[in-house]
Amino acid sequence: MSASASEFFSSRWIDQPEHVRVLTGGLPLGFRAAGVASGIKASGKPDLGMIVTSAAETTSAARFTRSGVLAAPVLVTMERCRLDGIRAVVANSGNANAATGGRGLDDAAKMQGSGSIVAGVREDAVAVASTGVIGVPLPMEVVTRGIAAASGALSPEGDVAFAEAIRTTDAFAKRATLEVTLPSGTVTVSAQAKGAGMISPNFATLLCFVQTDAALSPQTCDLLLGVTVKRSFERISVDGQLSTNDTVILQASGESGVVVAAETEDELRLGEAIDALLRQLALRIVRDGEGARRVGRVVVRGGEEGAVEAAARAVADSPLVKTALHGGDPNWGRIAQAVGMALPGTAPLALDIAIEGMQVCTRGARSPHDGEALARLVSRDEVEYEIGLPGEGAETEVFFSDLGHEYVTINAEYTT
Amino acid sequence: MSASASEFFSSRWIDQPEHVRVLTGGLPLGFRAAGVASGIKASGKPDLGMIVTSAAETTSAARFTRSGVLAAPVLVTMERCRLDGIRAVVANSGNANAATGGRGLDDAAKMQGSGSIVAGVREDAVAVASTGVIGVPLPMEVVTRGIAAASGALSPEGDVAFAEAIRTTDAFAKRATLEVTLPSGTVTVSAQAKGAGMISPNFATLLCFVQTDAALSPQTCDLLLGVTVKRSFERISVDGQLSTNDTVILQASGESGVVVAAETEDELRLGEAIDALLRQLALRIVRDGEGARRVGRVVVRGGEEGAVEAAARAVADSPLVKTALHGGDPNWGRIAQAVGMALPGTAPLALDIAIEGMQVCTRGARSPHDGEALARLVSRDEVEYEIGLPGEGAETEVFFSDLGHEYVTINAEYTT
Repeated sequence: MSASASEFFSSRWIDQPEHVRVLTGGLPLGFRAAGVASGIKASGKPDLGMIVTSAAETTSAARFTRSGVLAAPVLVTMERCRLDGIRAVVANSGNANAATGGRGLDDAAKMQGSGSIVAGVREDAVAVASTGVIGVPLPMEVVTRGIAAASGALSPEGDVAFAEAIRTTDAFAKRATLEVTLPSGTVTVSAQAKGAGMISPNFATLLCFVQTDAALSPQTCDLLLGVTVKRSFERISVDGQLSTNDTVILQASGESGVVVAAETEDELRLGEAIDALLRQLALRIVRDGEGARRVGRVVVRGGEEGAVEAAARAVADSPLVKTALHGGDPNWGRIAQAVGMALPGTAPLALDIAIEGMQVCTRGARSPHDGEALARLVSRDEVEYEIGLPGEGAETEVFFSDLGHEYVTINAEYTT
Repeated sequence: MSASASEFFSSRWIDQPEHVRVLTGGLPLGFRAAGVASGIKASGKPDLGMIVTSAAETTSAARFTRSGVLAAPVLVTMERCRLDGIRAVVANSGNANAATGGRGLDDAAKMQGSGSIVAGVREDAVAVASTGVIGVPLPMEVVTRGIAAASGALSPEGDVAFAEAIRTTDAFAKRATLEVTLPSGTVTVSAQAKGAGMISPNFATLLCFVQTDAALSPQTCDLLLGVTVKRSFERISVDGQLSTNDTVILQASGESGVVVAAETEDELRLGEAIDALLRQLALRIVRDGEGARRVGRVVVRGGEEGAVEAAARAVADSPLVKTALHGGDPNWGRIAQAVGMALPGTAPLALDIAIEGMQVCTRGARSPHDGEALARLVSRDEVEYEIGLPGEGAETEVFFSDLGHEYVTINAEYTT
C-alpha cells in the first residue's frame, strides 16, 4: 500500500517527517467516504461527496473564510453545527450556493438535514460545504438524490471518489493518506483538498477535509488545525482573492485507540505530520493555480511582524512579480517595487534581496551578480526569493503561483 | 488652433467644462520645452525632455509616490528643490535611476546641476524625474549631452516633443493644451503625462507635468494640484502597483497677467479645468494599460469612508474582475467576492450591485435581470459598476483597466 515518498512530498520546501510514511490511499479507521455524480454539473462529472464517521466520540475543529460575503453553507455550518463534534460532511461542487439569499440558507439547511438522515447522526453534527458558480440556486432535487446515492456508496476507500467530487477547475485531485508513527502507537491521517485559484466561472474557493483515527480532545483538535492552517493554507496566494466558501475541517475518530494528549511528544509528532500534509497540499493548490508554470516562495525577515507580512503579501500578489516568474525573468526590480509599495513612508529602505541564494540587491542598491547564472536559476520549477528588511526577529513566507496566458484564457474567455 | 473636443475629452465620464476649449498643442506663455534622443534608449527614440519657464515669479507644487523605495530623482527633487518655485524640469525615459544607491543620488544631482546651467536658474529651482529600467546606473555622459541638446531645442511648441521623450511602453503620447476662460481673463493650461501600467521591463511609473500662465500663489498652486491629483491619478489602477518614480508637477508662470486669487470664481473655474484635464489624462493612462481592451469605473456608495475605499480598490485590483472585463463577461459574482474580501467580518453584508445601470444583486442576493442584455452592455469600451454598501454619506470611484493576454506577453515574455 505504500507509495514512494516523492509522489506526494514533491517540493524541496516540505520535508517528509521521518515518522511519516505515505500510503496510496484509504481513510483512517472509523471513516467512510463517497463521491457521486448527482447532476449539479452539466458535464456529468462527480459533484457530490460525503464523509461519515461511525465513532460517536469523534472530535473536530473547523476554520472558515473571513470574507464579508459568506456563502450559505459557511453560514449554516458556522451557526447550526457543533464544530467540535462534526460526524458527517456533505460537500458539493458545481454550485457555490453563494449570494443566494434566504433560499440559499434554506437549501444549505436542507443539505444538512438530508446528511443527518442518511448518516444517522444529529443535524448539528453535519457540516456542509459548496464550491462552484455563484448567484444560482442549488438544484435541490438532484442534491437530495445525490446525498442518498452517496450514502449508499460510502466506503473506507472512498477518499479517492470524494476528492474527485469536490474538484471544479482543479487540473488534478489533491489528497493523501499518511501512516504516522507516534510514541504511543501508529495512526493514520488523510486529507482531501480542492482549489486552483479560481473556480470557474466565479470564485477562489479552497476546501480541505482532514481525518485521523487518533483520539484527540476537542481542544487539541482545534489547536492542531489552527496552527497547521496558519502555516499552510494561510501562506499561499494564487491571485490574492479571498473566497466566500473556504472551509477546512479536521475530524478525529479515536478508532485507532491511540490517545494523543496535550503537550506530549505524541501531539508534537502528530502536529508535524499534519503540518507537512497541509503544507504539501497547499503547495499542490499553488502548483494548480490556473495556467501556473512555476511556484515561488518569498521569505521576508526583519524587525517587525506587520512589515514582513505586508512585504511578503505584496510580492506574492504582484502581477509584475508573477508575470516575471512565469517568464523565467530574474526581475528583482519588481521585488523592490512591491516591497516599497507595501511599506510607504520608509524611504530610503535598506532592502536586501536574494534570488535562489544569489544576492542581487544590498541596502537598496544593486549588488554585482552573474545575470546569466541567475536567469538559469529562475527558469526552474520552484524559485525562492529572500528579502531582508531592517531589524531582526520577525520572519514569514508566502508561496505563490505565476501569472500566465492560461490564467487569462480561463478567466476571460471561458465564461458562463 | 482648436481641435474638436472629442479628440481629447473622449470619455463619457469626464465632462468638458463649458469655459474650456481644447487646442491642438502649444505651451502657456512663459514656457518652452523640448524632447531629444540622447542615447539612453538603445532604440534611438526620444528619451530626454526639458521644460523651462522664463518667468522669475513662477510658482509651483509637486506630488510624489509614497513608496518606501524611492528612486534617486524623487529623493533629490524632494530634498534639494524648492518645490514652490520650480523653474525647470529635466526628465528622462529609458532608465529609472532607482535602486542605484549613492551613485544614483549623485547622478540625479548632476542632472539637476546641468539643468540649472543650461536653463540659467538656481539649482534648487530644477526638478528631475526619471522612468525606465531600474538597478542600472544612468549613462551620465549621454544624459549631460542630451540636456545640452534639449536646451538648444527649447520652443513654445516643444510640448509635443517633450511628451514623446517621456514615453516608455506607452502606446501613445498623452498631452493636451486647454484655453480656459476665467472671469478675470483667458489663460492656457497644458499637461504632458506618461504611464501605461508598467514600464518595460520593470516599473509602473507615472509622470505628469502641468503648466499654466495664470498667476497663482504657491498656496493656490499646491491646493489646486493636491485636489486634482486626488481626483485623477489617485483614482486609477492598471495593476495596483505603486511606482518608485511617480512625480506630478504644476508650474504657473503668471505670464498671462491673469491673477487667480484664493477663494474666487477664477480659482474655482481654473480648478475645474485642471480637474477635467488630469482626469482625462488619467483615463488615457488606464486606456493605455498594457493590453487593455476596456476601461472600468467602479463607484462605491455607503456609510463609511474606509469601507467604500477598500471595496473600490479591491474591485479595481481584482484579477478576477479584470479578466471578466477583458472577456466582456458580466460576472457580478466576482464583484461580490472582491467586496467581501475587502470587508472581512461584515457578513452577512447587504450588498447591492448594478452594472451599467442594471441591478444584478440586491442585499447580497441575485436580482432577476436580463443576462443577454447585460452581456451586450459589458462588451462596450467603458463599463460602469455601482456598488451600494449599508449606510449613506460616503462615495468614491476608481477607474481601472482590464487584464488580457497582451499584459502577460509584455510582462512575462519581453524581458531584459
